[in-house]
Amino acid sequence: MSIVQPSDAIVLGIDIGGTNTKFGLVSSSGEVLDKGTLRTNIYKDINDFIDALYNEVLPLLNKHLNGNPLAGIGVGVPNGNFYTGTVEYAPNLPWKGVIPFSELITNRFGVPCLITNDANAAARGEMLFGAAKGMRDFIMITLGTGVGSGIVANGELVYGHDGFAGELGHTIVKPGGRKHWSTGSEGSLEAYASATGIAITAKKMRAEFPESMLNDYPEDAINSKTVFECASKGDAIAIEVFRYTGQKLGEALANFVMFSSPEAILLFGGVIRAGDFILNPAKLHMERNLLPIFRNKVKIVFSGLDESDAAILGASALILG
Amino acid sequence: MSIVQPSDAIVLGIDIGGTNTKFGLVSSSGEVLDKGTLRTNIYKDINDFIDALYNEVLPLLNKHLNGNPLAGIGVGVPNGNFYTGTVEYAPNLPWKGVIPFSELITNRFGVPCLITNDANAAARGEMLFGAAKGMRDFIMITLGTGVGSGIVANGELVYGHDGFAGELGHTIVKPGGRKHWSTGSEGSLEAYASATGIAITAKKMRAEFPESMLNDYPEDAINSKTVFECASKGDAIAIEVFRYTGQKLGEALANFVMFSSPEAILLFGGVIRAGDFILNPAKLHMERNLLPIFRNKVKIVFSGLDESDAAILGASALILG
Repeated sequence: MSIVQPSDAIVLGIDIGGTNTKFGLVSSSGEVLDKGTLRTNIYKDINDFIDALYNEVLPLLNKHLNGNPLAGIGVGVPNGNFYTGTVEYAPNLPWKGVIPFSELITNRFGVPCLITNDANAAARGEMLFGAAKGMRDFIMITLGTGVGSGIVANGELVYGHDGFAGELGHTIVKPGGRKHWSTGSEGSLEAYASATGIAITAKKMRAEFPESMLNDYPEDAINSKTVFECASKGDAIAIEVFRYTGQKLGEALANFVMFSSPEAILLFGGVIRAGDFILNPAKLHMERNLLPIFRNKVKIVFSGLDESDAAILGASALILG
Repeated sequence: MSIVQPSDAIVLGIDIGGTNTKFGLVSSSGEVLDKGTLRTNIYKDINDFIDALYNEVLPLLNKHLNGNPLAGIGVGVPNGNFYTGTVEYAPNLPWKGVIPFSELITNRFGVPCLITNDANAAARGEMLFGAAKGMRDFIMITLGTGVGSGIVANGELVYGHDGFAGELGHTIVKPGGRKHWSTGSEGSLEAYASATGIAITAKKMRAEFPESMLNDYPEDAINSKTVFECASKGDAIAIEVFRYTGQKLGEALANFVMFSSPEAILLFGGVIRAGDFILNPAKLHMERNLLPIFRNKVKIVFSGLDESDAAILGASALILG
C-alpha cells in the first residue's frame, strides 16, 4: 500500500457507464491507489445511486486519505455538461431529463465536482498521463460499444458553446447509409466503426459468404472479438469486415483532420484490439482523402493508458489537469 | 477625410487573392480610412509583388499616418500559415513552394506582420467588428469561387498543430461524389457549394430539363448570379440547383456542429446572395442530420460586414484583435 504524503492531492475519479460505474482514488502523479465498481442501471432514482456510490467509496476514503481532504471529484458520464454540471437526456442512463449531477455529488461528498462526457474525460487523461502528453492539438476517438470523441485545440478541450462539442461518432460518413439503431440517423461513423457496427457488418457479410469461418458461430456470438479470432486465422471475410470498418473510420478521420489539423489521433477502446486489421485501412483512407497539405503529418496512435484504469484516470484529470 | 489622433493605432490590412490584392488602412475602431487594389497574378516573382504593393501603399501611409508609426500589417492569403508566416504551396498564387511572406513584408515595410488564410482572417474580422462580436464559439464559412472556413473555439481561432486547420471546403460530404476540378478529391463540400460547384450543378440540370430558363443563357454565362436571376423568376430548375446546393451545405454543417458545437455559423461570400434559396434547405438538412441535443440551437447568420471591406477588416483584425 502506498503511503500518501499530506502534500499529495488525492482525487476521486468516476466513470459512469450505462451498465457499470467505476471509481478510483488517484494521486496527483496519476497512480490509481484503489478502485471499485458498482452497478449503474439498478438505481432508477439518481439519489439512490448517489447514496450507493457514497457508501462504496467511503471505505476507500477512510483507508487512503489519512485525515487529509479529498481534493475533488471528476466524473466522466454520457451527456455530461462541463459548463453546467448537469447530465442531460442521456439515452443510456436510467435517469431521465436534466440531472444536476455535479451538485448532487458535491452535496453528498462535500467537495467540488467537475463532470464531462466520457470521451472528453479520456482525452484529458491522455493529456495528463498518457500518449498526448505535451500535445496542444489532438483528437481522441473512443471505439467501444459506441464511438465517442474528445477534441483538444490550442491546448484546451473543445466544449462548444453549450458544453456538448465532440460528438464525432454521430457525424455522417455515408449520407443515406446504415440506419443507426438508436438515433435513427443514416450513415453515422458510429453505425460502422463501433463494436455494435462491426457486429452488424460481420452478420451481413457472413450471410453473403457461406464459406466464411464467421458462420461457425451462433448469431449472438458475432462481435468484434470473434471477428478478430477469424481474421487472425486468415478468414478473408473477417479481414474484409475490419477493412471496411477501417475505411469508414479513415474517411471520417480525414474530415476531422481538415477541421482541426491535429498532431495526432488517439484511438482507445475495445475495437482497437483488432490492431492493424483496422489501423492499416484507416490510415490508407485517411491519407487518400486528405488535401496534400495535410498528408503524412498526422500520427494515429493507440492510447497510452491501461484500459482498465484509463476511464478513472481521465475523470480524475478533470481535477488534476 | 478623418483626422487620426496620435493615440489611435492604424494598421494595414491586406487581402491577397489569386487575381487581385486589396489593401486598406484601418483604424482601431474598424474604420477603413483608405484603400486600394493591385493585380496579383502579373507578378511572377514575389519580390516584384512586394515592391509593387509597397509603392501602391506608400501614398496612403503618407496621407494618413501624420508621422505616427504604422502599428502592423495583417494579411489574409491562401495557404498562409499563422505560426510560421509562410505561404506554402498555394495552388492559386503565382509563387511556388514555401514563401517567407511575413518576413518579406516586414523587411520592406519595417513593421510586424501576421498572416493567415483568408477565411481565418474573415473570422477574426467578424469577431472584432462583425456578426460574431462576443462569441467564443463559431464557424465562419466563406462561399465564393471556393469554400473556405475559419473555426473559433474557446474564443480562439483553431490553427491546428501546423497552422493549417479549417479546410472545411475540402471535407467530403458525398464519398465517391463529384470530382473536384483542382484537388481531384471526390465529393468535397467545395465541389458542390462553391460558385464553381453551383455552375456545374446548373449546367448538368439544364441539360436534363430543356424547359428551364437556364437554357436561355450561353454556357459561359451560367453562374450563381444567373441561376439566381432564373430562380427569382420562378424557374423550378434554378430553384432546384440552389436547393441541392443547400442540402449538401446543410449536411456538411451538421457534421461541423457535432464537431465543435458553435453558437452560430456565419456565412460570407458571393454565393449567399442566393439568400433563402440556399439558406432554407441548408437549415433543413443541417437540423435533420443533427443529434437531438444540438437541434434548434445553432444560428446560421450572414456576415455583418460590408463585402467590399470585409477582407481588409479581417486582415487588419490579426493585428488589432
